[in-house]
Amino acid sequence: MKAIVVNPPNKGVEVREIEYDVKSIGEKQALIKTIANGICGTDRGIVSGLLKFSRPPAGKNSLVLGHENLGQIVETGSKVLRFKKGDYVVSIVRRGCGKCSNCLSGRQDFCETGEFVEAGIRGLDGFMREMFIDDEEYLIKIPSEIVDVAILLEPLSNVVKAYNELMQTQRRMIWWCKDGSYDCRNAVIIGSGPIGLLFSLIFSSQNFNVTILNKRDPSPIELEIARQMGANFINIKKESISTNIDVLIDTSGHPSAFIPLLNKLNKNSALILFGTTGGEASEITAELVTFLVENNVLLFGSVNASKKDFEDGVNFLTVWKYRYPSLLNKMVTKVVKPEEAPDVLYAKPKGEIKTVISWT
Amino acid sequence: MKAIVVNPPNKGVEVREIEYDVKSIGEKQALIKTIANGICGTDRGIVSGLLKFSRPPAGKNSLVLGHENLGQIVETGSKVLRFKKGDYVVSIVRRGCGKCSNCLSGRQDFCETGEFVEAGIRGLDGFMREMFIDDEEYLIKIPSEIVDVAILLEPLSNVVKAYNELMQTQRRMIWWCKDGSYDCRNAVIIGSGPIGLLFSLIFSSQNFNVTILNKRDPSPIELEIARQMGANFINIKKESISTNIDVLIDTSGHPSAFIPLLNKLNKNSALILFGTTGGEASEITAELVTFLVENNVLLFGSVNASKKDFEDGVNFLTVWKYRYPSLLNKMVTKVVKPEEAPDVLYAKPKGEIKTVISWT
Amino acid sequence: MKAIVVNPPNKGVEVREIEYDVKSIGEKQALIKTIANGICGTDRGIVSGLLKFSRPPAGKNSLVLGHENLGQIVETGSKVLRFKKGDYVVSIVRRGCGKCSNCLSGRQDFCETGEFVEAGIRGLDGFMREMFIDDEEYLIKIPSEIVDVAILLEPLSNVVKAYNELMQTQRRMIWWCKDGSYDCRNAVIIGSGPIGLLFSLIFSSQNFNVTILNKRDPSPIELEIARQMGANFINIKKESISTNIDVLIDTSGHPSAFIPLLNKLNKNSALILFGTTGGEASEITAELVTFLVENNVLLFGSVNASKKDFEDGVNFLTVWKYRYPSLLNKMVTKVVKPEEAPDVLYAKPKGEIKTVISWT
Amino acid sequence: MKAIVVNPPNKGVEVREIEYDVKSIGEKQALIKTIANGICGTDRGIVSGLLKFSRPPAGKNSLVLGHENLGQIVETGSKVLRFKKGDYVVSIVRRGCGKCSNCLSGRQDFCETGEFVEAGIRGLDGFMREMFIDDEEYLIKIPSEIVDVAILLEPLSNVVKAYNELMQTQRRMIWWCKDGSYDCRNAVIIGSGPIGLLFSLIFSSQNFNVTILNKRDPSPIELEIARQMGANFINIKKESISTNIDVLIDTSGHPSAFIPLLNKLNKNSALILFGTTGGEASEITAELVTFLVENNVLLFGSVNASKKDFEDGVNFLTVWKYRYPSLLNKMVTKVVKPEEAPDVLYAKPKGEIKTVISWT
Repeated sequence: MKAIVVNPPNKGVEVREIEYDVKSIGEKQALIKTIANGICGTDRGIVSGLLKFSRPPAGKNSLVLGHENLGQIVETGSKVLRFKKGDYVVSIVRRGCGKCSNCLSGRQDFCETGEFVEAGIRGLDGFMREMFIDDEEYLIKIPSEIVDVAILLEPLSNVVKAYNELMQTQRRMIWWCKDGSYDCRNAVIIGSGPIGLLFSLIFSSQNFNVTILNKRDPSPIELEIARQMGANFINIKKESISTNIDVLIDTSGHPSAFIPLLNKLNKNSALILFGTTGGEASEITAELVTFLVENNVLLFGSVNASKKDFEDGVNFLTVWKYRYPSLLNKMVTKVVKPEEAPDVLYAKPKGEIKTVISWT
Repeated sequence: MKAIVVNPPNKGVEVREIEYDVKSIGEKQALIKTIANGICGTDRGIVSGLLKFSRPPAGKNSLVLGHENLGQIVETGSKVLRFKKGDYVVSIVRRGCGKCSNCLSGRQDFCETGEFVEAGIRGLDGFMREMFIDDEEYLIKIPSEIVDVAILLEPLSNVVKAYNELMQTQRRMIWWCKDGSYDCRNAVIIGSGPIGLLFSLIFSSQNFNVTILNKRDPSPIELEIARQMGANFINIKKESISTNIDVLIDTSGHPSAFIPLLNKLNKNSALILFGTTGGEASEITAELVTFLVENNVLLFGSVNASKKDFEDGVNFLTVWKYRYPSLLNKMVTKVVKPEEAPDVLYAKPKGEIKTVISWT
Repeated sequence: MKAIVVNPPNKGVEVREIEYDVKSIGEKQALIKTIANGICGTDRGIVSGLLKFSRPPAGKNSLVLGHENLGQIVETGSKVLRFKKGDYVVSIVRRGCGKCSNCLSGRQDFCETGEFVEAGIRGLDGFMREMFIDDEEYLIKIPSEIVDVAILLEPLSNVVKAYNELMQTQRRMIWWCKDGSYDCRNAVIIGSGPIGLLFSLIFSSQNFNVTILNKRDPSPIELEIARQMGANFINIKKESISTNIDVLIDTSGHPSAFIPLLNKLNKNSALILFGTTGGEASEITAELVTFLVENNVLLFGSVNASKKDFEDGVNFLTVWKYRYPSLLNKMVTKVVKPEEAPDVLYAKPKGEIKTVISWT
Repeated sequence: MKAIVVNPPNKGVEVREIEYDVKSIGEKQALIKTIANGICGTDRGIVSGLLKFSRPPAGKNSLVLGHENLGQIVETGSKVLRFKKGDYVVSIVRRGCGKCSNCLSGRQDFCETGEFVEAGIRGLDGFMREMFIDDEEYLIKIPSEIVDVAILLEPLSNVVKAYNELMQTQRRMIWWCKDGSYDCRNAVIIGSGPIGLLFSLIFSSQNFNVTILNKRDPSPIELEIARQMGANFINIKKESISTNIDVLIDTSGHPSAFIPLLNKLNKNSALILFGTTGGEASEITAELVTFLVENNVLLFGSVNASKKDFEDGVNFLTVWKYRYPSLLNKMVTKVVKPEEAPDVLYAKPKGEIKTVISWT
């Protein structure tokens, strides 16, 4: 079958035929036809040879790329309980180490050993291929009302994890407002890529006041998306943010983007680090450390997601699809055929929010 | 009565007579005779004129210094329920703003408005005086078995808060070991001052493996203290730490002290910022940010303590006094008379762990 | 204006004109035109004179009935920030005591003093009238996509509170399944009234396996509703439940309904008590107590909801409206005019799930 | 070696020689010399043949009795890290199923499968024998200062678990007092046996107001113990309790003991079921169910303990030994030789709080 294949840690990508036995479906497995893949920075990092932790499955020389996915079940094993032919599904990316307490209880996003594998990233073939077999336990059922936007579920799941973690960690004190809601809280998101917009959506639909920051003016689509969810969009090069910040989310990975904003943090506030990049450094002063101490500021890095985070994401997609008609669809700025994938994997299309490979 | 008085934000300190009406005890108040005060960096910061947030009570020109305290009740108001004459007490330092949800529920350590006052620091006279009147609700009862070490309770309370907050925030996943304890976890404490040693004690008595770091060799007393609690002491200038770190606590305030250690942090680990200082800066790279993201690292600054943290501290003091005989007493390296206080407030005595002013 | 008025604790209800100054809108208030009210057992309990805690506002002889509500803003005060004319809103029922920590932080559903008031129930006029003025802080914004089903929000809010409390309390151990989801957990709901169905919906959309119990066969509507959400419906008089139970929810208030099922509870399971009634007793044996102990069983009674629970309910309504088309509409089995309200308040219409008074 | 042996589920007990290879110490194991065993109701239940779940180890006909234990290490395997010859230890009773998430992460007290074993109770030989070999991971180190009272650690561990669970579950709202402590909370404990007294101690040392209930007058020892910790002791047959209750703990297992007290429960209060017995029943009315609902009452049964609960118990024993001199020692009302064990296992000595078998 056709697949998009890389050779990490070497650079390059090609669309080629691979051998794959679509008949060897285990009792608790399903054969899945790929509908679409999303492309993100990690994919481009692998293709460019920069992501050094990327590796093929044990004993193999190449890796099928792709972790953002949407598929449809073609056939099920005899002991599959919750799925049937025709169901739309999203596959979970990370598979646990089988050793640590977190992986043994379905929280592989908090794997302690680092011995997990990730489909399309490290040690496990990904989803950029015509078909694949997967275990029932790794599949998320996609209700019919959101099939057209479900390609956003995998990136969303990581955002949901970070949000859920924020709510859990902030229980160190009373963080909600005096009316019991979060409508007095200001969430500021650095970056207006797909992750930034998904964070904006999740905080908006929890009634935070949301501001999206970038160092350029918004595109018309970004402006329309922000307007629909009731968020502000600020070009930080032109305008400074006027409010204090209760939760700051960095999706850029640049310390130079978030460190200058830390002095806007309210007491008991939180900073979520989500973005990853390299080749940059900023200064952190002892005065800033004192500020973090005196104000009980919390910070955490967040990566990956649990199955429950995917499931919560399914419900969020339904909410947003019907509350903000066409917003989610607008986030898909380009759809390409598998044969065209190398082009959009080598270079990011102009004005991209999310580029999607369609297999149908 | 005699008191140790400062004029913040101006520098200087003097021991002088002040006027104070020891008769005006309210129904729910007690008159307390000061037994001892501890001296910490905050006191010296006020005396040196460096702590710019320090201020006298509203409408006054000077401030009675002192927040670390131990006293004995001389007289009680008619509606005091839980205390009687002769009881030993420690007074809570921070008094809430009366407005935010945290202050209204006894968590003034998480005050949101910043409108709190702190005895001996900002807006409220402190405890370095012969006697003072305080409300019953701000008093912690000191059981007789620990009167001799209870001067350590106030600094300890802040350490207890940070520890309790760690345990609450780390509930974001399964952080305990596979046997249900914490004996597989490595706590590394930067700094061997009183706060560093109290952190070491709390983690030791919860069965973490504890390492104390400093950039010099330990003094004989520090070595003896570390040995008694079963902790390692490493001169980080001579030796590097061999283990990975599950919780790193900085009591120095120097980014140059903790940033080079962050690459030793385990997945899902935590960094507690507790120290405050100034006049220094370090670099934080995008690669380090990526590391924090990929490893779900948590960080928080922690300041002050709730009444429950003081109460937990009372129990810890009893445990440590009897488990490590003489350890806590060794932490008091110098005792001075009130008249000698200016000397030890202007300059830190050599080999100091904790210097105490004795009023009896 | 027209209103539905009761005289608690005396029985009776009448539709009559009341005096109400619709001009006296405060700066942070809004004037709201009533769209609809739902009727529940509490309303009928007041009308029948059985609910002895029901009382008029202080200094008044009668009470405007009605707590389930949906309205539309007609006018706003000058300092209203988040609402404008034309917005659809639901008003919160309970208003805090202004004294206890829970009420002071927006958690009046956990009021400690009992000095709260509840619109249409005790001490505060309710929403069964043409118009009313309310404070902005008590209003929930209803997005346009769910206006037609938002009359279900108030009863739903109480269900959301209980669900959120379950998830918080069950954090005493690892309760999720080995894949990180809840798809291995069986939720059994006693009762198929509106509350029972809303509990079924919330557990279904969190991927629990849901069984609805009643002591009669389901009506065609109930059967269709259960089928749509993927739940079983069991007539407990004819059939016993085959699975063990991880969470049992009683919406009946009858100990005879839930006590015989307790021996089906799994280890670490939970029982939520939600229903209230009277005039019945059942036996609890020491053997049953031993069973609860040996199996770490948790039980809690749950009443009322916070503003955040209402807001979560808004999102759930959007999910269910689009995932299960027509299901929520089917729950409204009868719509009456205000003039007809006494009929449906004195006696429950046959086949009722939810009866609604329409004011438009 | 000598051992106290039972044949569950048959009644009877004998002191006899058993065969046991004290040489087969694994690399991560230790050989332990028994110092003492405590006797509790479970032991007597097994001896009397009433505890039907008691069973010998797989493939054996008899069971060495005894789960409350204190021992001293005689020899260690080559890979034991944290213990050395001469260390005093207490062994954990329950060993996990190796299958469920809770057991796989050291929370076998919340085992989900029920396939655990318990030393001296079901499926695993107990500690009433001269010596035994155990895995390092199941051993709790006893600091020297509490060796004389450490026989109370195993029963205490179960009390600590229940207390920790209470504090976790009550985080469903703000339960602490307005000063941030628990000094406004009333804990009422039904029963003055060893478990009742340990609950009283734990709540006393957390500053709850504690009342101990029994249906008889206190013995002089009980009165002295209550007085030392500052608790009230009420003969519930003569006197009713005057305060409302924030947490009620039943150590009796009799529904007739706790059900009549439920109407004294405050809003948001909790009931901990800890006692187990049989042969009794009480009535629960729908009105009582309504009361539990309207007041958000929480209830849970609690059994067993994690390793962390044992470790917390070690710290509590140190606190209580030095805060209430001789109190813990007074709880041991009788010490017998192994040969005399059958007498005190068949019939409870008069005035017993805790009877101990001494092996040295």
